[in-house]
Amino acid sequence: MKKIINDVQHVVRDMLAGFCFEHKERVSYEPKHDIVYRKDLKDIREEVVVISGGGSGHEPAHYGYVGKGMLSISVNGEIFTPPTTEQIVAAIRMIDKNKRVLLIVKNFKADLESFLMAESIAQKEGWTVDHVIVSDDVSIEDDNSFNKRKRGVAGTVFVHKILGAAAREGYSLNELTEIGQSVINHLHTLGVALSPVTHPETDRSSFILQDNEVFYGIGIHGEVGYRKEEFHSSEILAIELMNKLKSLYRWKKGDRFAILVNGLGATPLMEQYIFTNDIRRLCELEGLDIRFVKVGNHLTSLDMKGISLSLLKITDPVWEKWLKAEVEVANW
Amino acid sequence: MKKIINDVQHVVRDMLAGFCFEHKERVSYEPKHDIVYRKDLKDIREEVVVISGGGSGHEPAHYGYVGKGMLSISVNGEIFTPPTTEQIVAAIRMIDKNKRVLLIVKNFKADLESFLMAESIAQKEGWTVDHVIVSDDVSIEDDNSFNKRKRGVAGTVFVHKILGAAAREGYSLNELTEIGQSVINHLHTLGVALSPVTHPETDRSSFILQDNEVFYGIGIHGEVGYRKEEFHSSEILAIELMNKLKSLYRWKKGDRFAILVNGLGATPLMEQYIFTNDIRRLCELEGLDIRFVKVGNHLTSLDMKGISLSLLKITDPVWEKWLKAEVEVANW
Repeated sequence: MKKIINDVQHVVRDMLAGFCFEHKERVSYEPKHDIVYRKDLKDIREEVVVISGGGSGHEPAHYGYVGKGMLSISVNGEIFTPPTTEQIVAAIRMIDKNKRVLLIVKNFKADLESFLMAESIAQKEGWTVDHVIVSDDVSIEDDNSFNKRKRGVAGTVFVHKILGAAAREGYSLNELTEIGQSVINHLHTLGVALSPVTHPETDRSSFILQDNEVFYGIGIHGEVGYRKEEFHSSEILAIELMNKLKSLYRWKKGDRFAILVNGLGATPLMEQYIFTNDIRRLCELEGLDIRFVKVGNHLTSLDMKGISLSLLKITDPVWEKWLKAEVEVANW
Repeated sequence: MKKIINDVQHVVRDMLAGFCFEHKERVSYEPKHDIVYRKDLKDIREEVVVISGGGSGHEPAHYGYVGKGMLSISVNGEIFTPPTTEQIVAAIRMIDKNKRVLLIVKNFKADLESFLMAESIAQKEGWTVDHVIVSDDVSIEDDNSFNKRKRGVAGTVFVHKILGAAAREGYSLNELTEIGQSVINHLHTLGVALSPVTHPETDRSSFILQDNEVFYGIGIHGEVGYRKEEFHSSEILAIELMNKLKSLYRWKKGDRFAILVNGLGATPLMEQYIFTNDIRRLCELEGLDIRFVKVGNHLTSLDMKGISLSLLKITDPVWEKWLKAEVEVANW
């Protein structure tokens, strides 16, 4: 698989240097720990500084969300590998100790280990740090146990936006973790792949799909889904994802929702909008009150062709305000 | 090729309905003529209203640029087919006659026919209309004549931005066409494909590439390029595109440029940024003064994997200001 890269060992740093070249007036790059941070980090007025990060391969997540109103720092691991504890501690050490630090972590075992260890080290060094763990993925294990996988996937971007806006308004660290947990409780995501991921290092496909097959419930690192099926149309994909989400929410007419339609890397915007239109029609049939819609490549999986649907049930009207709040980042 | 679509005859209207569902607070959709327009069209204060459009398959171009500071209306044709004269006339008729209308047209024969015929009809009906024709493509015909193809491609987005910002500042129709022509004279684009386009209607690939081949100088509708070559690295692509552009500009150290790195539809952002970093290094070697950089999927070619590089030599400092001016659109 041809990839527009050079030395496969330098993919992450080459990419981050390219990003910071584009946005040099607003962000800076600390290459030793692959940290992208707001240029005005030393002067930010918020009490709570929001940090996120994870493995690379999910661009524009998370560095595309660094800026006023979302993240202050993104810590970037190698491809599909979370940042090390050392990287995350280095990021926290960039913050004044009289600030508070909130970590937004996607729910994967390795991510949790890195971030929570870093939190513990920084706390011992005198920083006040807390975290929220995003677990929006509702793909079902294919072992008939009906266990939700609860990984942190595209919905993480809504958590960045809501907590970033709330932090900007001056909410405390305790309030932010409570808001975050409440949002996460009402946030569910499900994805479908039309093609697998090809990892730059191994040049191997993550799974095999026949020419006319799709795979429901895939993960963002090429993890297999819960069911392969013949592909028919955008509408059939939309119905499958909406039905699964409906069974979780048990919504009623007039319930308020925000929607994120997320391209997984190689999905043309044309197709994302056709899928969005199918979701629109299904929401109308259900009588849902859609207050906010976001479409685009927001948390991707390298070169996967596919799409994910995230729904957030808006149980507090201020969430809608925060989703719509102005922001100064590259990719919202 | 699996595409997330439904009825192939309804691709454009399904897509536009999805887009306007996302942005319903800011834009509206006129389905009879597939027109996307600023919701406040009747109340805009600028003297000159900027309209663009073209075939679909280039998303987010052009509807993603409708909003304050760029376009007021996008007229959307079928896939790879320009809007009809009737569609464009319908768009102009949405404008008050005491305004002036500027059409931004990509240089393809069929686009010119539609737009210039519409301009002529609207003028007879009493509207004041003028146009600029974008011809940034510098791909060379492969017949050894060294004729530049001069098609209108990704650089069109810079023309939208600069003329949209200037219109917002109150420049007259005459001034805007002059500015536009001057920008176009200093704007050159060259692209490379790693994969062909597959047209939804025919399900046929636009050209054949071997597993390890790239194609320099391709068009945005699957047109063949000027040379196939074995793929080696991002850096080699960057050197080829920069060298071709260098031969046109004959730049010297300190010359000011703006850069657009444009993904062609299925190119992950990671790879776009790695390529951008290679361009950054080459610009540093050349001693160019890069004043503005934009990276992302801005004018695509359906599901093509590939990238284009546009350079704009900034001969008037106000162009930089206009490129950086605030804007309220979906995809800048």
